[in-house]
Amino acid sequence: MGEVHNARRERLAALVAERDAGALLVTRLVNVRYLTGLASSNAALLVRTDGPAVLATDARYAGTAARIAGDLETIVERKTAEVLTSLAADSGAQTLGFEAHDLTVEKHAELAALDGGIAFKPVGRLVEELRRVKDEDELALLREACAITDRAFEAILPMIRPGVTEREVAIALERHMVDFGAEAPAFDSIIASGPNGAVPHHSPGAREIAAGDLVTMDFGALYGGYHADMTRTVAVGEPAAWQREVYDLVKRAQQAGVDAARPGAETKDVDAAARDIVKAAGHGDDFPHGLGHGVGLEIHEAPLMGYDKTGKLMDRVPITAEPGVYLTGRGGVRIEDTLVVRTDGPELLTKTTKELLVL
Amino acid sequence: MGEVHNARRERLAALVAERDAGALLVTRLVNVRYLTGLASSNAALLVRTDGPAVLATDARYAGTAARIAGDLETIVERKTAEVLTSLAADSGAQTLGFEAHDLTVEKHAELAALDGGIAFKPVGRLVEELRRVKDEDELALLREACAITDRAFEAILPMIRPGVTEREVAIALERHMVDFGAEAPAFDSIIASGPNGAVPHHSPGAREIAAGDLVTMDFGALYGGYHADMTRTVAVGEPAAWQREVYDLVKRAQQAGVDAARPGAETKDVDAAARDIVKAAGHGDDFPHGLGHGVGLEIHEAPLMGYDKTGKLMDRVPITAEPGVYLTGRGGVRIEDTLVVRTDGPELLTKTTKELLVL
Repeated sequence: MGEVHNARRERLAALVAERDAGALLVTRLVNVRYLTGLASSNAALLVRTDGPAVLATDARYAGTAARIAGDLETIVERKTAEVLTSLAADSGAQTLGFEAHDLTVEKHAELAALDGGIAFKPVGRLVEELRRVKDEDELALLREACAITDRAFEAILPMIRPGVTEREVAIALERHMVDFGAEAPAFDSIIASGPNGAVPHHSPGAREIAAGDLVTMDFGALYGGYHADMTRTVAVGEPAAWQREVYDLVKRAQQAGVDAARPGAETKDVDAAARDIVKAAGHGDDFPHGLGHGVGLEIHEAPLMGYDKTGKLMDRVPITAEPGVYLTGRGGVRIEDTLVVRTDGPELLTKTTKELLVL
Repeated sequence: MGEVHNARRERLAALVAERDAGALLVTRLVNVRYLTGLASSNAALLVRTDGPAVLATDARYAGTAARIAGDLETIVERKTAEVLTSLAADSGAQTLGFEAHDLTVEKHAELAALDGGIAFKPVGRLVEELRRVKDEDELALLREACAITDRAFEAILPMIRPGVTEREVAIALERHMVDFGAEAPAFDSIIASGPNGAVPHHSPGAREIAAGDLVTMDFGALYGGYHADMTRTVAVGEPAAWQREVYDLVKRAQQAGVDAARPGAETKDVDAAARDIVKAAGHGDDFPHGLGHGVGLEIHEAPLMGYDKTGKLMDRVPITAEPGVYLTGRGGVRIEDTLVVRTDGPELLTKTTKELLVL
């Protein structure tokens, strides 16, 4: 991966030069990981326009850094941002770009007070912009994360029956994912049964699944640092007419969202493709969140897709499409895939059926 | 818990008044949780010196907030810091304290640009200072977290044998903790066998435990939001003389650290009580980290204990004591307890034996 990371750093250096900064201090840890391969709780990277990048991390990660990013000059030091700021100042840069969405006011003041008199300049979310379009190596990791997620869903189905608690389902699901090769769950699983299904981010609790419930399961595997995200809603026992009706509505809306996810499409138009179907059925107010979001090294990343969002989709951008309808006191339905926007049509990474499963 | 949280907010409001601010905008999520009971990924709290506090969180957490903090005025809004800043300005405060160690440069600039012309003032780590000394409710949760940790250690012992991988041990240990009632592991477990034991923060991997290994296990349970932290090192098969010697050294150092943890003690003196023993044995350079740290709603919190740290211990401050000796290429030993500083002597919360277990 050394070459991949080097190419990312070179693309970034070109963007930094466009912003009239001599270098960029990358402090956001997920961005350091993207640019070096190093997953660390204490690291920073100096990307320079006139020379190679320099990594700083503390002694705990020195061995890992040497193995993963051996081609990269690495300073072993606990005060990572400080040592790189001093290095930038010493090497004569006038302006140091920084990540204003990551650096705290306190840390910024400390760095700006260091000797050397370099000027700090916010340069926006440069690395996040690079991260939006994935390379094929990243997509392969995400594909595997989604395959593990599919397998875990299949494995959990026999357990979904009256008397089992939401929390038991969540724990079993997460264990299946790890057994199938996940590093960890990609996020806290949502298992929402019966009336709890009306809460989009319900935390799985002691409620026992009952006959007649819809059960919404929103979960995913973390693999190689990449996050899968899938939701399915199943019926426990023969569903009532309203349950089937809401399910079919959400399923149609979700398919419309997937179909609209083309390179060049405005994210708000993709959101509208799904939302208009929900609205036309009189449930517009029962779908209170955006259609989806980018996934990658973070579970939520650019692009965000909602009626109030701007931006266009591009080839090789992985996103989720996850409309839902939530009826307070009754329950809810959400259906979600992770997919990749492609010029020849969306590539679904989560492949579990979206037909209503009656268990 | 409503009363407990209200009392915390009142103590905080008094500190804010001392800092000549009309109110404090609390944005650090763990601090919002401490002051309200609400665990949310999007929340902020306005603590006012001239009136009751106001919570802001988004629609996902509105129901939970009403249940947990029903006595607290709550604004349901996605832009939590923004709505509370405007509220503070509208209510006539001249100066708004903020958490400069949490607020990013970008968010600070956005808030300062809001209408109302309130002046932002960094006020230090006020809530973290309050959190340092725990009340008995908090200690009860931490005690249970440590009891689960002890039980999981006992349950894992039969599994520690040649041929089992570090990762298999880590997964089984974490499953035991959840089965015994933990919400989750308190942090990523460290299982370091043989030469990997020389790496203080080794990530458990595919290495199989072998006869003659020392195996260091650093792990803990999360319970009610509180973090247990324990390390034990065991021998697989009869230990070599050097292994027993290093073990006995670390065990003596750890006990000295525990014994020195009294109210009024300087944290650097507590560190020295353990470190001097390691140094006297010629292993000073092989103990490259501080003696320990506070634990609570975070796994690492105030006070930090190291040779370069300042501050005094107080009654009801839970800390860890975790000296280690790491010998590159050979292996290492670390022994760690979570304990509470008490006027009548330290209360050990992790009770697993510190005699060398030979498995």
